[in-house]
Amino acid sequence: MTGIGLERLSLNQATVKHLSLPVAAALCGRHEIPAIGLWRDRVAEIGLAEAVAVTSSAGLHVSSLCRGGFFTQAGPEALAAARADNRAAVTEAAELGADTLILVCGGLLPGSRDLGLARRMVADAIGDLVPFAQQLGVRLGIEALHPMFCADRSVIASMGEAVDLALGFPADVVGVVVDTYHVWWDTRLVAEIARAAGRIVSYQVCDWTLPLPADTLLGRGHLGDGVIDFGPISAAVTAAGYQGYVEVEIFNADVWAAPADQTAATVRQRFAAALGPDDRGLAVHQGENPPAEVFALVPDVSCGRGGELGPELAG
Amino acid sequence: MTGIGLERLSLNQATVKHLSLPVAAALCGRHEIPAIGLWRDRVAEIGLAEAVAVTSSAGLHVSSLCRGGFFTQAGPEALAAARADNRAAVTEAAELGADTLILVCGGLLPGSRDLGLARRMVADAIGDLVPFAQQLGVRLGIEALHPMFCADRSVIASMGEAVDLALGFPADVVGVVVDTYHVWWDTRLVAEIARAAGRIVSYQVCDWTLPLPADTLLGRGHLGDGVIDFGPISAAVTAAGYQGYVEVEIFNADVWAAPADQTAATVRQRFAAALGPDDRGLAVHQGENPPAEVFALVPDVSCGRGGELGPELAG
Repeated sequence: MTGIGLERLSLNQATVKHLSLPVAAALCGRHEIPAIGLWRDRVAEIGLAEAVAVTSSAGLHVSSLCRGGFFTQAGPEALAAARADNRAAVTEAAELGADTLILVCGGLLPGSRDLGLARRMVADAIGDLVPFAQQLGVRLGIEALHPMFCADRSVIASMGEAVDLALGFPADVVGVVVDTYHVWWDTRLVAEIARAAGRIVSYQVCDWTLPLPADTLLGRGHLGDGVIDFGPISAAVTAAGYQGYVEVEIFNADVWAAPADQTAATVRQRFAAALGPDDRGLAVHQGENPPAEVFALVPDVSCGRGGELGPELAG
Repeated sequence: MTGIGLERLSLNQATVKHLSLPVAAALCGRHEIPAIGLWRDRVAEIGLAEAVAVTSSAGLHVSSLCRGGFFTQAGPEALAAARADNRAAVTEAAELGADTLILVCGGLLPGSRDLGLARRMVADAIGDLVPFAQQLGVRLGIEALHPMFCADRSVIASMGEAVDLALGFPADVVGVVVDTYHVWWDTRLVAEIARAAGRIVSYQVCDWTLPLPADTLLGRGHLGDGVIDFGPISAAVTAAGYQGYVEVEIFNADVWAAPADQTAATVRQRFAAALGPDDRGLAVHQGENPPAEVFALVPDVSCGRGGELGPELAG
């Protein structure tokens, strides 16, 4: 296990939500963060040409543009608007030289309970977008969102489903995004990542913290503050051939309220601890039972399975 | 499609959380609800013998006992306590004549990020419980919980995983629970239910409502108040051979605050509308775009897929 070095760290703008793009770019410079994941509202705020100039002069690689998608609209006007907006997003991604345009595909149609219809519309809309993206050299990244967002944000709700969808299109145009927050729970995750070999266009990391906050969109934490075991997921993503940047993307009101330099420093530090080449793994997270108590479970697992300790229990 | 008649309706006690078992049993009598899903705390409150007497004299079938599980404990004392508690639950289920003892398997171990360890402990603990359950003639029902509860309540987070787990044990002792709230989002759901043929021991229904409440445990609604399309799920459960009771189990603060007779009447009415033999399906849920607007999407789905309307859009 070689790990992922800080030279592959990218700061997703959502982690420092309150910063304009120039301020976020300067922050990356101060903290030796070589890449950034952009959001379209922050790009629009200063204009596309200026956004290109800012990232270029800062020497920042654009690891992704967030986001296209929300394909599941009802009615010709809403559908036409979504189509136009997705073409605009592809154009922006091309101009910015983004590694991928991330797609959050959309939930159920308004007033509908038909998951099959919504999923067919997503597939059709991506199919409609592919020639345009191919022409502009932009790779679309299908992101599976956590199933708790299935109704209102993405009917693509598991890694396997995202992979199935991507495999229906050319590999140079359509791939998948692995976001630990959305897929960590899935017992099939490692197998599905393997099936996505050559198709992974973005790897995004943040932690799953407890308890879930009132706004479930904001329940993400710094690496190490939650329960996700990043080692096996990172190893699977690496084994599937992904060599690109790894974005830290954290939606969390407390993180947003913190000074941006503190956030950037924490992002670097936690990235090195959770993903870095030394692979010491994360310590058992704070405020829980002491390791001694955890050790004591081993003799009680009776039938010879279940007794292996993960690295965080053995260390 | 024949549908599921009201003679198969069961009221899960959680839907009328504030009622004691005798009061809940009387409620079922007044509303011609032939079965009840019991909770152990409410059984304990009046004692097991009295609970048997109450349900028996009310002529109520006990469709399930909730619940055993929470196997993923750390340390010998906690593990021994969980083992003893699960044996007590099996004994209670046998005395009550419950169709199944529902298992909520438990989340990650305290202080651990190891999903594999937690899942092996669940499998081992069920294996440990099987001979005792078999001896007492109790069927264990593995319930897949929604992935948003994976960290703290159940590492068994999808129907496929529950089926895989159940298939490792004799069919007369271990089956799976299909709870619409937890699994509705899964693109593999119908296939996994088919794979569970002969293994389904409980079918529980409630709706997924938006927005999610601050306490995500309580985001369940009456059938028809949310986005779940019950028709295809019920058809799959029926095709898999399930002929048992169907429990309405709703965790929702507003439902709990409503008069119990009103709740019971709504449960009956919605059950008939969503699952009943006339199969007219549910109306488009309230407060959304009018059907006329939804219709308008059809001509815009360009490539010949995606144009079929679900029954709720066509009616």
